[in-house]
Amino acid sequence: MSYAQDALLETASNDTIAYDITEDLTTEVGPRQAGTEAEARGRAWALKRLKAEGFDNVTLEEFQMPTWVRGDESARILSPFPQNLTLTALGNSASTGEAGLEGEVVYFHTLDDLRAAPDGSLTGKIAFVSHNQIPTQDGSSYGSFGPARFVGPSIASQKGAAAIVIRSAGTDYHRNPHTGNTNFTDGVNAIPAAALSIPDAENLQRIIKRGKPVRMKLKLTPKNIGMQTSGNVYADVVGSNPDLGMIIIACHLDSWDLGTGAIDDAVGCGIITAAAKHLKKTGKLKRTIRLFWAGAEEVGIWGGKDYAEKHAGTNHALAMESDFGAGAVWRVDFALPASAKPLQDRIARALHPLGIVASSLPAGGGADIGPIIRAQNLGIIDLQQDGLKYFDLHHTPDDTLDKIDKADVQQNVAAWALTLRELANYEGKLDNK
Amino acid sequence: MSYAQDALLETASNDTIAYDITEDLTTEVGPRQAGTEAEARGRAWALKRLKAEGFDNVTLEEFQMPTWVRGDESARILSPFPQNLTLTALGNSASTGEAGLEGEVVYFHTLDDLRAAPDGSLTGKIAFVSHNQIPTQDGSSYGSFGPARFVGPSIASQKGAAAIVIRSAGTDYHRNPHTGNTNFTDGVNAIPAAALSIPDAENLQRIIKRGKPVRMKLKLTPKNIGMQTSGNVYADVVGSNPDLGMIIIACHLDSWDLGTGAIDDAVGCGIITAAAKHLKKTGKLKRTIRLFWAGAEEVGIWGGKDYAEKHAGTNHALAMESDFGAGAVWRVDFALPASAKPLQDRIARALHPLGIVASSLPAGGGADIGPIIRAQNLGIIDLQQDGLKYFDLHHTPDDTLDKIDKADVQQNVAAWALTLRELANYEGKLDNK
Repeated sequence: MSYAQDALLETASNDTIAYDITEDLTTEVGPRQAGTEAEARGRAWALKRLKAEGFDNVTLEEFQMPTWVRGDESARILSPFPQNLTLTALGNSASTGEAGLEGEVVYFHTLDDLRAAPDGSLTGKIAFVSHNQIPTQDGSSYGSFGPARFVGPSIASQKGAAAIVIRSAGTDYHRNPHTGNTNFTDGVNAIPAAALSIPDAENLQRIIKRGKPVRMKLKLTPKNIGMQTSGNVYADVVGSNPDLGMIIIACHLDSWDLGTGAIDDAVGCGIITAAAKHLKKTGKLKRTIRLFWAGAEEVGIWGGKDYAEKHAGTNHALAMESDFGAGAVWRVDFALPASAKPLQDRIARALHPLGIVASSLPAGGGADIGPIIRAQNLGIIDLQQDGLKYFDLHHTPDDTLDKIDKADVQQNVAAWALTLRELANYEGKLDNK
Repeated sequence: MSYAQDALLETASNDTIAYDITEDLTTEVGPRQAGTEAEARGRAWALKRLKAEGFDNVTLEEFQMPTWVRGDESARILSPFPQNLTLTALGNSASTGEAGLEGEVVYFHTLDDLRAAPDGSLTGKIAFVSHNQIPTQDGSSYGSFGPARFVGPSIASQKGAAAIVIRSAGTDYHRNPHTGNTNFTDGVNAIPAAALSIPDAENLQRIIKRGKPVRMKLKLTPKNIGMQTSGNVYADVVGSNPDLGMIIIACHLDSWDLGTGAIDDAVGCGIITAAAKHLKKTGKLKRTIRLFWAGAEEVGIWGGKDYAEKHAGTNHALAMESDFGAGAVWRVDFALPASAKPLQDRIARALHPLGIVASSLPAGGGADIGPIIRAQNLGIIDLQQDGLKYFDLHHTPDDTLDKIDKADVQQNVAAWALTLRELANYEGKLDNK
């Protein structure tokens, strides 16, 4: 089918809704960290917008979650070459107190090097963990090097470190460090933990390489402010046959505090919403499509977990998620029952005109849909986006509207609309129960 | 002459000295704002390095200059869409005081629009001036749009504004605002003045475009700390004929405080020093070449002025400067007496193998050599560097070592070495007296 013959492909490829949602959410709300009043303004904005776009059953479901907020953050090399370094606290970092702390820096080129350090060898010191994350189209490098952030602080604490700084889990060369959650294992004391911007991490490496002991002063004053309100927003395109399980499509409404959350994940909300709206206009669908704008993803997938608990009795069939920025879709992965192979082939063919090819890798879903997928053994389709630039921006102050390429967003909307059309009108089994 | 036949071209094209100086100065000293102890460490470093590189007459000349230092800086939109904005104070900005100030934002798309505002129309308000600076190879766009920073604050103060924020005078899309001096006209009260990063400036424009009054809270607490010590460092390659005026080649040692001053201007010092060193090794030159590492350029060209005063009796013939980053040289401009046309043609031919072409535009020199050029009517040659990326980095936190392309630096060193060889062995008139 050519572009001109397929009205949905044509409309979706010229979409403006996704970009407008991205622009409006990042401008009219801006940063919206989970558990803060800014995320609450985001939920109010989302409810209003989803109603205005004409969706059914626009619903808010609130929940409570523990909340950590950033304080002051600064670092200075005291000797041998005094100068400030740019860094940002990791989510769940402990505070140094107002007075800050000083310590000798101990360098580890990789997380494995830190793991190999003898217990107690870091007592009173500041561990510095680097890594070699490079851009990868499938984002896999983050999986390999992200653990410096995910578990590095917990390991450093177990070795007795007073604090830890890591090279940001990212791929850009700007003085904009990458935040993100870290998790301290049960029974391990939280310590101050921060990410240096990559230029600062490389400068610190050069300073260390000159062979003199390096002393750093670190000040981080984040706080745990206890249980706060977050919430999920969802909306439906109601299908004609309530016996068919619904298709749930997800993004997340919260963002980290440093940027305005354009690529992570306002644009994901824009893409799924635009695709559903274009499809809705083509006529009644058999299955219900549910737009799930999750709350509190960044800080522990609280929204995804809350949804799975509250909707254990709701009949879902398949889940999809858009939470990997604004890059074009380049690959589609499936996790469907064998009986759905003809459907899978139809979707693959439908995506060919957009340059998207089917892989033989199983779809894994995303963070927000993980809990409901596991609870109900749902089918999954992943429209994999190009991630070569994603970790230039992820969790940094640079996650702002100007990074969005409108043509790439339109390609995403088209891919989603074509995929959803096949799914919403398919009466066969989609789940993996 | 082919590369292989010209040992100087070969050596300079494989230079490592310029990059090493850039790396070492930015690592071992880091940011070195004029008038601070960091600039003093920079001078000590420079004296030691220039001696180690084998130059003659390595000399420090101190002077006093008024010094302004940055304090806290933050901004927040209070209504209609509360969110923080990233900005940085401009040099000579007044303080808002610890409590900060609040005001309604009044938008001007250009500096001309601000000029056209009626006197008193900004009383108690925060002026916001934007502009459309785009990348230009010759850097001319900065000349056209930089005045938003140079004189915008003074004009806003005259119109009664409580404060001013400008779109950074730059071309990048990172959350790294561009600082730089502003100057308040005599008799005009200094007001708080800051530059928003470009993503923030565009976000503020979008917020304003939505039509509701915009209130901002601004906190800037810089201080004037009075007269402080700065200084120039110079070193010579002594020529055989003291009757021939010397060739002075300049860079500046001070940097803004936000970055490590790699492109502005450690690399300039690296380039001129490497070129002089390679040339020195080829044998005795007729004219003396003086390396002039100026102090306190960024904050008012205090070093250049002090040098011209103290060396009014020194016989200079021609001046050159490297202070436009690390981009390749693409053009050469001359301001020489007519009698030197054959020399000019020889230099132009010598630079052809490096891709550099002669222009018909008159050389203008640079900031640090301006005072001595004017005082002694010196000849000038400008090796013009590609400026397409320069204003992505200029005066930002992003001015760090990782932005330096080694091959481009080598091309600069080669261009300087070939030009200096012609000049240092030329016995005709070079000045414009």
